[in-house]
Amino acid sequence: MPVPLETRTEMQAPEFKDFAKEMVDYISNYLENIRDRRVLPTVQPGYLRPLIPDEAPQQPDKWEDVMADIERVIMPGVTHWHSPKFHAYFPTANSYPAIVADMLSGAIACIGFTWIASPACTELEVVMLDWLGKMLDLPKEFLACSGGQGGGVIQGTASEATLVGLLGAKAKAMKRVKEEHPDWDDNTIVSKLVGYTSIQSHSSVERAGLLGGVKLRSLASDVDLKLRGETLERAIKEDLEAGLIPFYVVATLGTTNTCAFDRLDEIGPIGNKYNVWVHVDAAYAGSAFICPEYRYLMKGIETADSFNFNPHKWMLVNFDCSAMWLKEPYWIVNAFNVDPLYLKHDMQGSAPDYRHWQIPLGRRFRALKLWFVLRLYGIDNLQAHIRRHCGFAKQFEALCRADERFEIFGEVQMGLACFKLKGSNELNEQLLRRINGRGNIHLVPSKVNDVYFLRMAVCSRFTESSDIDFSWKEVAASADEVLAEQKK
Amino acid sequence: MPVPLETRTEMQAPEFKDFAKEMVDYISNYLENIRDRRVLPTVQPGYLRPLIPDEAPQQPDKWEDVMADIERVIMPGVTHWHSPKFHAYFPTANSYPAIVADMLSGAIACIGFTWIASPACTELEVVMLDWLGKMLDLPKEFLACSGGQGGGVIQGTASEATLVGLLGAKAKAMKRVKEEHPDWDDNTIVSKLVGYTSIQSHSSVERAGLLGGVKLRSLASDVDLKLRGETLERAIKEDLEAGLIPFYVVATLGTTNTCAFDRLDEIGPIGNKYNVWVHVDAAYAGSAFICPEYRYLMKGIETADSFNFNPHKWMLVNFDCSAMWLKEPYWIVNAFNVDPLYLKHDMQGSAPDYRHWQIPLGRRFRALKLWFVLRLYGIDNLQAHIRRHCGFAKQFEALCRADERFEIFGEVQMGLACFKLKGSNELNEQLLRRINGRGNIHLVPSKVNDVYFLRMAVCSRFTESSDIDFSWKEVAASADEVLAEQKK
Repeated sequence: MPVPLETRTEMQAPEFKDFAKEMVDYISNYLENIRDRRVLPTVQPGYLRPLIPDEAPQQPDKWEDVMADIERVIMPGVTHWHSPKFHAYFPTANSYPAIVADMLSGAIACIGFTWIASPACTELEVVMLDWLGKMLDLPKEFLACSGGQGGGVIQGTASEATLVGLLGAKAKAMKRVKEEHPDWDDNTIVSKLVGYTSIQSHSSVERAGLLGGVKLRSLASDVDLKLRGETLERAIKEDLEAGLIPFYVVATLGTTNTCAFDRLDEIGPIGNKYNVWVHVDAAYAGSAFICPEYRYLMKGIETADSFNFNPHKWMLVNFDCSAMWLKEPYWIVNAFNVDPLYLKHDMQGSAPDYRHWQIPLGRRFRALKLWFVLRLYGIDNLQAHIRRHCGFAKQFEALCRADERFEIFGEVQMGLACFKLKGSNELNEQLLRRINGRGNIHLVPSKVNDVYFLRMAVCSRFTESSDIDFSWKEVAASADEVLAEQKK
Repeated sequence: MPVPLETRTEMQAPEFKDFAKEMVDYISNYLENIRDRRVLPTVQPGYLRPLIPDEAPQQPDKWEDVMADIERVIMPGVTHWHSPKFHAYFPTANSYPAIVADMLSGAIACIGFTWIASPACTELEVVMLDWLGKMLDLPKEFLACSGGQGGGVIQGTASEATLVGLLGAKAKAMKRVKEEHPDWDDNTIVSKLVGYTSIQSHSSVERAGLLGGVKLRSLASDVDLKLRGETLERAIKEDLEAGLIPFYVVATLGTTNTCAFDRLDEIGPIGNKYNVWVHVDAAYAGSAFICPEYRYLMKGIETADSFNFNPHKWMLVNFDCSAMWLKEPYWIVNAFNVDPLYLKHDMQGSAPDYRHWQIPLGRRFRALKLWFVLRLYGIDNLQAHIRRHCGFAKQFEALCRADERFEIFGEVQMGLACFKLKGSNELNEQLLRRINGRGNIHLVPSKVNDVYFLRMAVCSRFTESSDIDFSWKEVAASADEVLAEQKK
């Protein structure tokens, strides 16, 4: 016998409203005062398990108790990515409009795998990718509003976009080679496929090759850590001579190590010449192309087959929102088109069924947060956000250059400054350990050509000029300690 | 010169609080009155573009205008998945505790790719998968708290879990075969690999084979649409004789077509006998195993290598939250372990770095919504939710059986009743078109052995007995119309 609604003990609407509004206040308080928390937690692995019961409760807990446990259980183990003292990795986005949009997305909670499954979910995504593409001044071949084949889609992560690009490229190459060699079977062709990327590209590119089961060659970058066209062409020629089939190249605009920009203007034409799919991974730096003054770094974009960047990194749209545009999405759509009856609908073909554009079947209503952020910031404020971060990196660079113990590693690009103490890798490893050990700021290192260096990424939307001064003082004070110990 | 914080025009904390609290009220109002909306929208493809500007605004819009546009732009194109009148596909979850948890997740907005990137994010996930595993009475080899190798992880979707299982199985098989045949290269081995699934399994299983670049055979199911052990063994023997290498089998507990349960108690032992990785896809029905009376359907679970179900389908945790357990996660971890310096940390090895367990690199703090839902419902209420839905399907079955024009297709399992008008496929296609055309309820069809039938899935947490009566009356009235027209 079902229990009548009014006697149920799970959370009902009135409690939800109290709880959610309390959470709104908590969130605002957390973010506005995030600077006061220790950016890196001091907990040890396994800290959390003893703090909560071994099993789920039989009867509901009170929401007030859950609320109280956030500070007791969760916060001691949180690395505060949105603190101005967080300079690790690259930024991940967080903004008030995106948080509110995600609330609505959670309430509608549709699964937008086909158009009919929630037309608004698909259609807003199509138009938002056009808005965004125009903001970046992408060639019209990428935009749905141009009326051609092209269009955009929200992927979960850049890793998935790289993999989707690879799988599209693979499908396209397979078809071409099969026409040329009808006697070759699939395995023979796959064993001959070879893709290219730079040794500086993100680890997820190598991983896409592993997942896709194809060879990916890591090519050398030049002295400025950029992949050049002549390097790519030499590799392609070698491989063609060896009987292989070049099919995919990933050009990175803004590498994770140093924010270097591959020479897309050279790579793209070579890719086009040899029938190699050109994918552009601008995961972090792509957001900067909303500012005209940075677009020279995407020169050659018209030669690309697919382009990807993460608004969820540097454009204030909460994770996950990885924007990808394709000139010929049908290579992806047709590669994995499994079409059971329960997913068919009468309108097929007149709007994209995004499930064919991605690895998973299910998808949230993610276009809402793009819409809310673009409207509630406006282009001017988004550009100002990018320019502020770039300015802060320059501010850090100036402070670093003024201290003769330090040197800048490579060129400061976007919101990233790479630097090191003049001296050995060991010395710089000590420096990093000291900085993170003091716990006032958080950095991660990288290594290029066997040189170990520190990465200072500007990450928070709350960062102000005084925060950069603070971070620099932390670095300098840590250096004082490390160098003093060395002299002992 | 950066603009001082106080003169910035983007949304600040006070406005966020107003906006977010207004959204809380909107959400509560939307969900509590969702029954009054037309479940399936009447818009045509392309409806949305003319309703909004062609480009993002230069200056911020007012949040009140964004709020007003939800009803004007979005809602006309929303398919209301949480309406009691929605009976399509399978349910997707939505609950008040999950929505509030996601707000917190959006505010913390960490990327939990490694332990150090936010220890709480990883550790709560480890413990929540233990809580959940205990609720299902999974064998202890799957639980991290048992101190063995096993453990759980939150994937985005069941599609990804199937692919991750396949890739782990592939890595394990490759290693074994390489040891036996050191002269075979990778391509030779991959070309010999063969996996198995039932012809009734979800389209994403076939897709995982395409993505992973391996053969997957669709085996026939028995008259009850279940995959049997003898069918699997026959296929394995055939393939071994043909020189192939069986490596992976997917058993489905609760198929999408009819909610049939493969005989895991037969398939599992065969898989174990032939060194074939056994993956269990219980995407929808797995939630029911929190009720002891349904666990007989997962008999044989101790033979599985990996097990997956979606709390985001039937256990009130908003998408995305697909729970996966592995007995030997290291096959996945080692398969794609790319380990750049910027992701290394001192604590490596003492807690899982979940980035190695999944396809993407980035991941949200999804364990929070599992924690909130388990605590704020409690096991009793979650069990009651499952039992209510199962009861509603039986209620529909009884109504259907009492009308001699209709027949039930197969067996009513869980919250799904498959049914049809006695008569041709064409007649039932007309019936479905009529039902969806009236727009009062929404169903999708399926087809098995060339028989077309309708699927009535109980989807909403708001569903009451009177809603089932309403839905049945819609079906019956639609049948009246279709049959009357036929007689003309």
